[in-house]
Amino acid sequence: MVKIVGIAGSLRDNSYSVLALQQATNRIKALGAEAEIIDLKEMKLPFCDGGDDYPDYPDVEVMRAKVKAADGLILATPEYHGSVSGVIKNALDLMSFEHLSGKVAGVISVLGGQSNSNALNDLRIIIRWVHGWVIPEQISVGQAWQAFDNEGKLKDEKLSQRFDSFAQSLVENTAKLRG
Amino acid sequence: MVKIVGIAGSLRDNSYSVLALQQATNRIKALGAEAEIIDLKEMKLPFCDGGDDYPDYPDVEVMRAKVKAADGLILATPEYHGSVSGVIKNALDLMSFEHLSGKVAGVISVLGGQSNSNALNDLRIIIRWVHGWVIPEQISVGQAWQAFDNEGKLKDEKLSQRFDSFAQSLVENTAKLRG
Amino acid sequence: MVKIVGIAGSLRDNSYSVLALQQATNRIKALGAEAEIIDLKEMKLPFCDGGDDYPDYPDVEVMRAKVKAADGLILATPEYHGSVSGVIKNALDLMSFEHLSGKVAGVISVLGGQSNSNALNDLRIIIRWVHGWVIPEQISVGQAWQAFDNEGKLKDEKLSQRFDSFAQSLVENTAKLRG
Amino acid sequence: MVKIVGIAGSLRDNSYSVLALQQATNRIKALGAEAEIIDLKEMKLPFCDGGDDYPDYPDVEVMRAKVKAADGLILATPEYHGSVSGVIKNALDLMSFEHLSGKVAGVISVLGGQSNSNALNDLRIIIRWVHGWVIPEQISVGQAWQAFDNEGKLKDEKLSQRFDSFAQSLVENTAKLRG
Repeated sequence: MVKIVGIAGSLRDNSYSVLALQQATNRIKALGAEAEIIDLKEMKLPFCDGGDDYPDYPDVEVMRAKVKAADGLILATPEYHGSVSGVIKNALDLMSFEHLSGKVAGVISVLGGQSNSNALNDLRIIIRWVHGWVIPEQISVGQAWQAFDNEGKLKDEKLSQRFDSFAQSLVENTAKLRG
Repeated sequence: MVKIVGIAGSLRDNSYSVLALQQATNRIKALGAEAEIIDLKEMKLPFCDGGDDYPDYPDVEVMRAKVKAADGLILATPEYHGSVSGVIKNALDLMSFEHLSGKVAGVISVLGGQSNSNALNDLRIIIRWVHGWVIPEQISVGQAWQAFDNEGKLKDEKLSQRFDSFAQSLVENTAKLRG
Repeated sequence: MVKIVGIAGSLRDNSYSVLALQQATNRIKALGAEAEIIDLKEMKLPFCDGGDDYPDYPDVEVMRAKVKAADGLILATPEYHGSVSGVIKNALDLMSFEHLSGKVAGVISVLGGQSNSNALNDLRIIIRWVHGWVIPEQISVGQAWQAFDNEGKLKDEKLSQRFDSFAQSLVENTAKLRG
Repeated sequence: MVKIVGIAGSLRDNSYSVLALQQATNRIKALGAEAEIIDLKEMKLPFCDGGDDYPDYPDVEVMRAKVKAADGLILATPEYHGSVSGVIKNALDLMSFEHLSGKVAGVISVLGGQSNSNALNDLRIIIRWVHGWVIPEQISVGQAWQAFDNEGKLKDEKLSQRFDSFAQSLVENTAKLRG
């Protein structure tokens, strides 16, 4: 069974990145795969200082172990200043080839304004750099403040279908590439 | 007089990004401009949560005020995983158009391996996004562990000349664009 | 007086890239600067073979001379496959530092679908590579098939104002940087 | 059996991009897969005008058919001005989702100076845009003028091994993803 770990790059209360990630992981589970969200808001992580060991921050090893044990990843980030959030980049900086190499990733960005692919492009290059795969399907949720209903579901049917295709591709292709 | 603020995106002890930044600011000062380094290692900054106010972290306002008062910036980042460090991106996330717009920036990256322009490209897009300028001169210091001598000076004459051109362009063009 | 040369990267009849470029150059002229469009449809250019000389294609030297004599550039490209058109990239490949270095450029992209910044980002990195400047103002015209009226004017007032700011920044800052 | 088509983005005589592509396709064949090179120097292709039909250029359909029939692609481009060559971008512009979607691609760049990943990054975003995959392994051949011996083989053993891994990953993962 394919095992997917999702990381959202926002620390906001009621973060739209977390909502988007939940939309993705719900679909992953509906397809019979395993999915777990690493909520950076619940984790106590340090800023990466370029070193490997963070004895005062046991959550570093918790995150590393979960990611290492996964077959695939979903990275969902707010687009800040035309790029990924420092929060998600720092979480990735705390991990290395040992944890990330060979993973199959799907990437999602969330914006207050119009959708754009800057943060998605950056995630694509970053994941490649740690020798991972990124599925062709990607999602940029524009005007995120009006994208979700009160239950956290996507209002727009077409966008919802993009999440369907995203989840299906991630599960199917992770299974293929892992094999 | 042109006023330049430099930020280094590394928290490592004896960081090569800080050494590179010092090489740049020394040259800036020798050209008669003002230069100050914001050492993120000395600052106590939070992770950006998407909000504006960080009352528990007065250094946020210190950094914002220094950047806002500057005419130009130098951003020096280690290249981690084919992109900027989460540390420097988070520092930038804590600032906004109000602090960054219209600044003239020079960008520097520092790598353990061969030089590359991934992090420099990212900084260029980020600075543009906050409506700043980036000078054409840019520097990627490859194999940084052998680039500096014991006094923190650049061993390679050609690389040292790149820093000369970088500093001169930043000072001259900041003066022009500010005018 | 500032002299701007515009190049549109499309060979389509009634190209929206040309329309967008005209909107920009009209505004440039209204600001008292000189503006000329190099219409690649009217030029007979070869594919770049990596060499310098194209004796069978005198238009190569015509284009080079016009660009070299200019202070600033506008590059307007359709976004094809998430990047610049091969047509405009090939035109740029036919030129070198000698013609392009030090120019101040403004970049525009035109898309059939939603606006995006992929082609703009690429132009930004390309112009930097030949040691040029790119102004922070940039324009991505989405759904270009409905953006212009019968006279080639922009229907959307807000987009029209972006062209105003774009032209003003290009003229003002070219004058400053050239000085 | 996996079928790979390689395209080199250079029209130079004795092009290093073609040499690099041959190094890759030789290895592909040694692994028991089929590999064919589309030599753009031998093809008579027009500049893309945004339309679908090029009746005066039958080679457009020849190229499209070969690419469509392939499972995987190798794109080898010289890095010109910090990006892909206009020649290879134009060839890609002449094709569409119908021909490119779902392909598994490996990307190679060739430079006169130091290796860099600008052109590789661009190819990665372009291939994603047409809904293809790009393998994590990628190759940038720096100082290409001294990289090959008289027989077109790679002088540097480490670089040669990168081509081995590249070819193996492309064949294996194309088989997996196609399945």
